[in-house]
Amino acid sequence: MPGKSPRPGITAPGTPLAPGSVLGIIGGGQLARMIAIAAAQYGLKTHIFAPEENSPAFEVAAAFTCAPYDDEKALRDFAGRVDVITYEFENIPAPTADLLCRLRELHPSPTALATTQDRLDEKTFIAGLGIETAPFASVADEAELDAAITAIGLPAVLKTRRFGYDGKGQVIIRNDADLEKARALASTAPCILEGFVPFHEEVSVVATRAFSGEFAAFDLCANEHRNHILDVTRVPANVSDATGRQAIDIARRIAEALNYTGTLAVEMFLVVDGGAERVVVNEIAPRVHNSGHWTIEGAETSQFAQHVRAVCHWPLGSTARTGEIEMKNLIGSDVDKWQDMLCEPGASLHLYGKGDTRPGRKMGHVTRVSRKRSS
Amino acid sequence: MPGKSPRPGITAPGTPLAPGSVLGIIGGGQLARMIAIAAAQYGLKTHIFAPEENSPAFEVAAAFTCAPYDDEKALRDFAGRVDVITYEFENIPAPTADLLCRLRELHPSPTALATTQDRLDEKTFIAGLGIETAPFASVADEAELDAAITAIGLPAVLKTRRFGYDGKGQVIIRNDADLEKARALASTAPCILEGFVPFHEEVSVVATRAFSGEFAAFDLCANEHRNHILDVTRVPANVSDATGRQAIDIARRIAEALNYTGTLAVEMFLVVDGGAERVVVNEIAPRVHNSGHWTIEGAETSQFAQHVRAVCHWPLGSTARTGEIEMKNLIGSDVDKWQDMLCEPGASLHLYGKGDTRPGRKMGHVTRVSRKRSS
Repeated sequence: MPGKSPRPGITAPGTPLAPGSVLGIIGGGQLARMIAIAAAQYGLKTHIFAPEENSPAFEVAAAFTCAPYDDEKALRDFAGRVDVITYEFENIPAPTADLLCRLRELHPSPTALATTQDRLDEKTFIAGLGIETAPFASVADEAELDAAITAIGLPAVLKTRRFGYDGKGQVIIRNDADLEKARALASTAPCILEGFVPFHEEVSVVATRAFSGEFAAFDLCANEHRNHILDVTRVPANVSDATGRQAIDIARRIAEALNYTGTLAVEMFLVVDGGAERVVVNEIAPRVHNSGHWTIEGAETSQFAQHVRAVCHWPLGSTARTGEIEMKNLIGSDVDKWQDMLCEPGASLHLYGKGDTRPGRKMGHVTRVSRKRSS
Repeated sequence: MPGKSPRPGITAPGTPLAPGSVLGIIGGGQLARMIAIAAAQYGLKTHIFAPEENSPAFEVAAAFTCAPYDDEKALRDFAGRVDVITYEFENIPAPTADLLCRLRELHPSPTALATTQDRLDEKTFIAGLGIETAPFASVADEAELDAAITAIGLPAVLKTRRFGYDGKGQVIIRNDADLEKARALASTAPCILEGFVPFHEEVSVVATRAFSGEFAAFDLCANEHRNHILDVTRVPANVSDATGRQAIDIARRIAEALNYTGTLAVEMFLVVDGGAERVVVNEIAPRVHNSGHWTIEGAETSQFAQHVRAVCHWPLGSTARTGEIEMKNLIGSDVDKWQDMLCEPGASLHLYGKGDTRPGRKMGHVTRVSRKRSS
């Protein structure tokens, strides 16, 4: 029924949605797929909006719209068919987010999106909260690169301010020989230069904040990357209780400052300096996060279920952990061993329904939980 | 493309399906919905076939066919679009099962269906394995009722041989006053008269058998019914190890004798006689079962995931339990308290996406797991 929406406009923000409501999700990859599955377990319907045909999330949704993110008519139609909107990735064009949030509740908010879409804005925001980040400097164009290097020192990483992920849009500068590639990158887009943090380990906090201000974090995750892509997450991270609390407190302050509704991840470096531990924030992901996939089996409420609760204005659930956890991403041909993993006691295999196995492509993950057995 | 299936005929039975294959499911209720979710977590697509519009399983499937079970054209089209077929309920018309199994692998087999669709055939089959059941006698028509009562004694239950569930199509006969209702039932359909078993508790075994013969059972479940509908399941049942083993051995023998592929449930009475425990088989459900819903959080592999593994010819998973379990069905207005259950630590709420709350309707369930916490 074009032009006649069965749904009213935006309800009073914070009003709990009834089971049977429709959750709209922007993006159709594995994160949307796992959000949709969590929503289905709560009796909600999902409607996916994504431009790619055969998006993995389409297969588990009650409805989907396959259209570009700038298709205003399709976006308006989508907003008219759902009760609340969320997204699985942060690189949603700002005009898209602005349009959607005028038509329907959108969580997390366009402010959270805008802050985290731009590495310079993001670092400036974090530093403004008095939270330590890597040293950074703006590199608006090629001409500003030398001054930034003088300020930050080498080694350093030059990154485009926007649209980078999994190591794309980055140049590591260790010496003069790397400068040519760095200049080439700086000439294509506004960049940020970040100093190296001599870290002991990469960690992350996955947490959820409700519209009401309620906040719940999962235990601190220790993350290993391979070729700039998350490879393994282990929980709990091997840090002191004080460091774990510090990390979660940082995530809470960030979520509050963004007036955030939903699950987010804060990636951090664990720095050990003369025996003293501290964390330094690397970046914020305003969405469910790969380092939280373990929560499906490893916590009483998964990060996906928490996200659904938050955006539907339902109470948050217990984040208690169910055992010692190892989550391994299945990247590219890692997935070929899926049958072995099916046979392994304590291992839970997740495959994302992607057709082609390509190098660097996240095909699935496996979570291993070591439980204290009940009698 | 009518008449041109993209898929070949039946492959060699027992050949593992690749991730990305399509699992066809007959029936669109909550059991199909939970099978579809389990399949999606393994990267499989699902295609639901059910006659009811707005079937709960449609919302989580990659595709669905809404058509009557005797629509041969729709069934042929469905079979041409899937790689293997299973079902969520046993009352599939025999001609439907016979047609489908000629077009595509169908698990569990039509033999398992036929045996369990008819209470007299089922009891005869079980007794033929040397396994104890309630005393029973055929009541082909009204005229045979008196002889059956003489043979079995009172109290007894008269049940239609086919299509009864949740107490429908049953008359309890305690005395002459109940005879009139019993005669009326016997005049409408062939029946079976079953003697009362003075049971201590109702229990069930939920187990899975693979085409290869591999067999894995979950721990024995203790079930409480209310108005003939399952209300609460607790695991483990409070029985001796020997009784637990006896019950699982019975389920194994039944599965083997049916040459069964998939998850099944065997409902039993626990009889305590002079201090000695034994189990007496009540009935077989050739499908995933309500008393196994707790396995989603309460076991390393759920009954739904095991069923998917079995029908796809994948190895079975670990059935190890993760804690002490209570599963409570949310029947009719029980579901109104969904928000309280969301707040309860250790409780996992499942809602089935059914629109209307009606008395006696299964709207969802909640599983409570008491875990030994990891440090």
